Amino acid sequence: MFEVRTDLAVEENERITKAQEETKGISVTEEDYGEEQIHITTVRITTENGAKQMGKPKGTYITLEAAEMIEDDEDYHREISKRLAEILKELIPVCDKQKNYKESTENQKKVSRKGFAQAKHELEGTSILVAGLGNRLVTPDALGPQVADNLYITRHIIKEFGRRAYENEQVQPVSAIVPGVMAQTGMESQEIITGIIREVKPDYLIVVDALAARSVRRLGRTIQITDTGIYPGSGVGNHRYSITKETTGIPVIAIGIPTVVEAATIVYDSMSALIDELAHAESLQPLKTSWNRLTEAEHRNLVRELLSPQLNHMFVTPKDIDAEIKRMSYTISEAINLAFCG
Amino acid sequence: MFEVRTDLAVEENERITKAQEETKGISVTEEDYGEEQIHITTVRITTENGAKQMGKPKGTYITLEAAEMIEDDEDYHREISKRLAEILKELIPVCDKQKNYKESTENQKKVSRKGFAQAKHELEGTSILVAGLGNRLVTPDALGPQVADNLYITRHIIKEFGRRAYENEQVQPVSAIVPGVMAQTGMESQEIITGIIREVKPDYLIVVDALAARSVRRLGRTIQITDTGIYPGSGVGNHRYSITKETTGIPVIAIGIPTVVEAATIVYDSMSALIDELAHAESLQPLKTSWNRLTEAEHRNLVRELLSPQLNHMFVTPKDIDAEIKRMSYTISEAINLAFCG
Amino acid sequence: MFEVRTDLAVEENERITKAQEETKGISVTEEDYGEEQIHITTVRITTENGAKQMGKPKGTYITLEAAEMIEDDEDYHREISKRLAEILKELIPVCDKQKNYKESTENQKKVSRKGFAQAKHELEGTSILVAGLGNRLVTPDALGPQVADNLYITRHIIKEFGRRAYENEQVQPVSAIVPGVMAQTGMESQEIITGIIREVKPDYLIVVDALAARSVRRLGRTIQITDTGIYPGSGVGNHRYSITKETTGIPVIAIGIPTVVEAATIVYDSMSALIDELAHAESLQPLKTSWNRLTEAEHRNLVRELLSPQLNHMFVTPKDIDAEIKRMSYTISEAINLAFCG
Amino acid sequence: MFEVRTDLAVEENERITKAQEETKGISVTEEDYGEEQIHITTVRITTENGAKQMGKPKGTYITLEAAEMIEDDEDYHREISKRLAEILKELIPVCDKQKNYKESTENQKKVSRKGFAQAKHELEGTSILVAGLGNRLVTPDALGPQVADNLYITRHIIKEFGRRAYENEQVQPVSAIVPGVMAQTGMESQEIITGIIREVKPDYLIVVDALAARSVRRLGRTIQITDTGIYPGSGVGNHRYSITKETTGIPVIAIGIPTVVEAATIVYDSMSALIDELAHAESLQPLKTSWNRLTEAEHRNLVRELLSPQLNHMFVTPKDIDAEIKRMSYTISEAINLAFCG
Repeated sequence: MFEVRTDLAVEENERITKAQEETKGISVTEEDYGEEQIHITTVRITTENGAKQMGKPKGTYITLEAAEMIEDDEDYHREISKRLAEILKELIPVCDKQKNYKESTENQKKVSRKGFAQAKHELEGTSILVAGLGNRLVTPDALGPQVADNLYITRHIIKEFGRRAYENEQVQPVSAIVPGVMAQTGMESQEIITGIIREVKPDYLIVVDALAARSVRRLGRTIQITDTGIYPGSGVGNHRYSITKETTGIPVIAIGIPTVVEAATIVYDSMSALIDELAHAESLQPLKTSWNRLTEAEHRNLVRELLSPQLNHMFVTPKDIDAEIKRMSYTISEAINLAFCG
Repeated sequence: MFEVRTDLAVEENERITKAQEETKGISVTEEDYGEEQIHITTVRITTENGAKQMGKPKGTYITLEAAEMIEDDEDYHREISKRLAEILKELIPVCDKQKNYKESTENQKKVSRKGFAQAKHELEGTSILVAGLGNRLVTPDALGPQVADNLYITRHIIKEFGRRAYENEQVQPVSAIVPGVMAQTGMESQEIITGIIREVKPDYLIVVDALAARSVRRLGRTIQITDTGIYPGSGVGNHRYSITKETTGIPVIAIGIPTVVEAATIVYDSMSALIDELAHAESLQPLKTSWNRLTEAEHRNLVRELLSPQLNHMFVTPKDIDAEIKRMSYTISEAINLAFCG
Repeated sequence: MFEVRTDLAVEENERITKAQEETKGISVTEEDYGEEQIHITTVRITTENGAKQMGKPKGTYITLEAAEMIEDDEDYHREISKRLAEILKELIPVCDKQKNYKESTENQKKVSRKGFAQAKHELEGTSILVAGLGNRLVTPDALGPQVADNLYITRHIIKEFGRRAYENEQVQPVSAIVPGVMAQTGMESQEIITGIIREVKPDYLIVVDALAARSVRRLGRTIQITDTGIYPGSGVGNHRYSITKETTGIPVIAIGIPTVVEAATIVYDSMSALIDELAHAESLQPLKTSWNRLTEAEHRNLVRELLSPQLNHMFVTPKDIDAEIKRMSYTISEAINLAFCG
Repeated sequence: MFEVRTDLAVEENERITKAQEETKGISVTEEDYGEEQIHITTVRITTENGAKQMGKPKGTYITLEAAEMIEDDEDYHREISKRLAEILKELIPVCDKQKNYKESTENQKKVSRKGFAQAKHELEGTSILVAGLGNRLVTPDALGPQVADNLYITRHIIKEFGRRAYENEQVQPVSAIVPGVMAQTGMESQEIITGIIREVKPDYLIVVDALAARSVRRLGRTIQITDTGIYPGSGVGNHRYSITKETTGIPVIAIGIPTVVEAATIVYDSMSALIDELAHAESLQPLKTSWNRLTEAEHRNLVRELLSPQLNHMFVTPKDIDAEIKRMSYTISEAINLAFCG
């Protein structure tokens, strides 16, 4: 059966607010950064009821929309990276009490066992593992791997030489993995990531993934950041296992950019618009009556029957998707670098 | 203005036969190779009138349709390569009179100057230049470059050692070029190819290119071979200059596989189908009347207005386009290898 | 300090047998497969003393030498893959008692809890994880990743549908990971692999890696298979942590192909040969005396001083290393496919 | 027979100046840019006699040596690009008389036919074709193709909209081609380039190629710029046809960076150094006498016999050649962009 699919909370929200004016358990705030033409929407789902209505788990969904993000403008992309870095820093409060640690070492004798653990943590920083999900060989799904490729990796250096190895002592230990997709590995991304987390023990996991949007208007113009992790069925590659705090044991921040729309979706939307239009046309007044006689379910059925089943295996992507993925992956990796490697 | 675009003569033909029963100057023959489920349609446009009606220049358009071509079945692809090789051999009658040449050299004294040229040609074979058009970095446009990558290149060996260098003396001198696209080179593919032809003097040019189809049903299932060359506006990369016998000076065979459908096209088609459906629905009888009151041009206008302008920069491609391009490029290069390198 | 480096036990063996005729705790057997010109040497190190003398841990080191392996001959490579598959099957005794299982299910009532585990194992087969070590972006180090790319991955299918999903019920569940190198991930390959093993619980680990040889003669002509795993300092990328049964918890089979020689090594060897030659030259009799007056340590020092320190960052590789890596990685992946996926 | 091979005039020069103090027809000037640690040597070969002695054709050979060029320091690379851009601008005096042209158009009536051609030229600028030689798939030979990939291509824009399309009217029309290597195309790079030049009619050709050096010390630290073009046997890929003003019809500037040393060369050099050393060692006085009794030819023969013939197919390259090629290709493309696209 055809279902309109979107990985973007902001699109679910649009759908819902049309139907219901106000929903308990869902709060939405919006901010505009005029100069950069960046629009940030924060959807907070705080109750199970809200989660049910949105079809998404409880948590915070931040959407950064930047109309010009598809353009090849380095300065503009730097601005986006900066805003995204700020958002990441809020979601991941890093430990940067180096100074305190130094002072405290002077009072080492008094420091309890717990204090030592704390001190060690301050010395080594807040460890962040970035997982670049998706298939490196399928262009619209290669966002995650390409982000991982451009990260500033520091964990191995800090582990060996401490944070003093860097001029900027705010640098946190960053590691990265490209787990691949199940057809390549025979394993779920979740299995690979969870195994590594148990061995390497990072404090936070950031997963980066390419998403499916509902509207072509959002492709390459939207970044979604959430603290809920990743759920089955989401992403271009359609994950089967969730990657969340429950399954991995550590907080999971998911960063996603819509890179495709399912082909059936754009057809469905266009046809719905056509029917609306027909129903309103002066010259087609009789249609209004006949159309209105049908229930919404009947409308949907009618449209669905007309959809070619072949469209199910089709994506809609921008013509220059290869260049866009490259640009957007760089914008995200730059944000992570800014947030944790100063 | 929105125009339904297709690079496939067989799709133009479908459109036309619906409207006009019989057209002077267009002949269509069809063959089925049952076992392999390969269907070959040959459209011959023989008059200017036929060319006008088809919106395509005079010439032969052979379409090989293979329902299972999108599957990863090596044996089946080999069958397609064989059929395609046969078609190529018919369009490019190679010189394989080695034996005659050997005899004639025994009578060398009698051979005229023209005879020598002929003899040399027999010795060196029929020289074929293959141009892999498109952008190597944009997946659905990378078909041509990938075909060129897998060709069996022989010209430099034959030029140095003669065809005797190969066990099979039917081997023809094959060379290849990947001209790139204008954004990469600053030059038209046609300029690059024509320049090389003037210097290298091949006997035939084969151009391989990714095409835009009208129907997703054809993506990755159809190969079009024509002896007319390539015209402005065709191909995924939209050529601006024609690559034909007129512009290059030698016969041009074009091989194309549709790899994309313009996003606007699938929406347009679906909406047209919806309107047809609506017009026939019992419960919507009044619509039929109102709809029929509009001219076809008005129908098209109505649909066009509803099309998101963003769709113009969007392609519809299969989800696994990367693997498909690899497979199909191999099928074409194998066909060229079979046809000219035995 | 300069040290002649080799990852090949067969080369260590050459060095040693020159010095000491017979060594306790080291056994060497050789076999020739005349037709295919394949030579297999099996070095078994059975005592700590033998391990010390060889500078390699106890275990079995099988070296497959194939003079023509650098050639682009598909049939020959298939022969090598077959031999390699046989060796792998001996080192990894897979569970193929499907038939027994079927019978036993008829007597299910009598089967103990332990019997169920056994039965389940028979149903699911012997699970094998392949780790393709090395850096995908550095050609001579890309062997491991390229092997992983060409494997026939079955674990996820068997996990979902059982081995009955395959016509050949001897198919074992194969999974694969490309862990990347520390500069890309911030983690040791060993950490990543161990973590995944704890989560995914395969029965065997196969690690594939590019090696450094001592002699250019071996490049691309030798495959080393050992049941000892991988030790610090080995491989082109120089591992720091061992990947062994001790660290991963499961048996580890390592497959390696030498793809580089350290530049300093070939210079050292050539200079040593020159000195030998000089010392024997009739016309240079006086040299013999003076040279012999120096100790071997002095000889080595003299040579070392002449080595450019820049050579330390240099590799010697065949000119067509890119094509060779592609060919050899295919030969190894084919062997693994043959051994475990029939 | 073994021959020490170098594509660098500056290395030939070193060899020669050791033997002969002063050579007629060869002038050498050196400059140092202290701050950037850039050293520029200009060798001018002005007579046939000088050409014979250098084993290189008459012309100007500029060598830019930058000790830190192998480092990953963006600022430093920008400095190198700037110096290289200056050198290119001196060798290619571009037409930037836009202003004059504008004035002259006011006096159009007086302008002769020749004046029109001049005016057109001023309007369209000095057309430059860049050819990125080498094999994209063989890392140390991929320099040329990677340079072409990063160029700012302007010819097609200027041809359509004039130089007014750019804010900076000093922008010249730049086009680029990656001709591939003979095994891929069946054609000589020279044939392809000459053909394109005849069709596209640029004013200058810049060829970029990876070179073989004699000393590992120069790898990735040296850029050679010459106005003589490229001769048979030069480059990593060993060109067979020259690409010069004589063969292409337009001035040819060649930019090369040494990326490999032939393996035999480093062995030869090290052994020569060893012999020198031996001959000077106090304790080896008798050797001096015996060694000196041999002619230089005998020395060379002795060394040559010891060289493994397998070394002939081996290259010495830095371990991180992939990253180095990427960095250096960017430095060259940036220089060309700076010189002609402002």
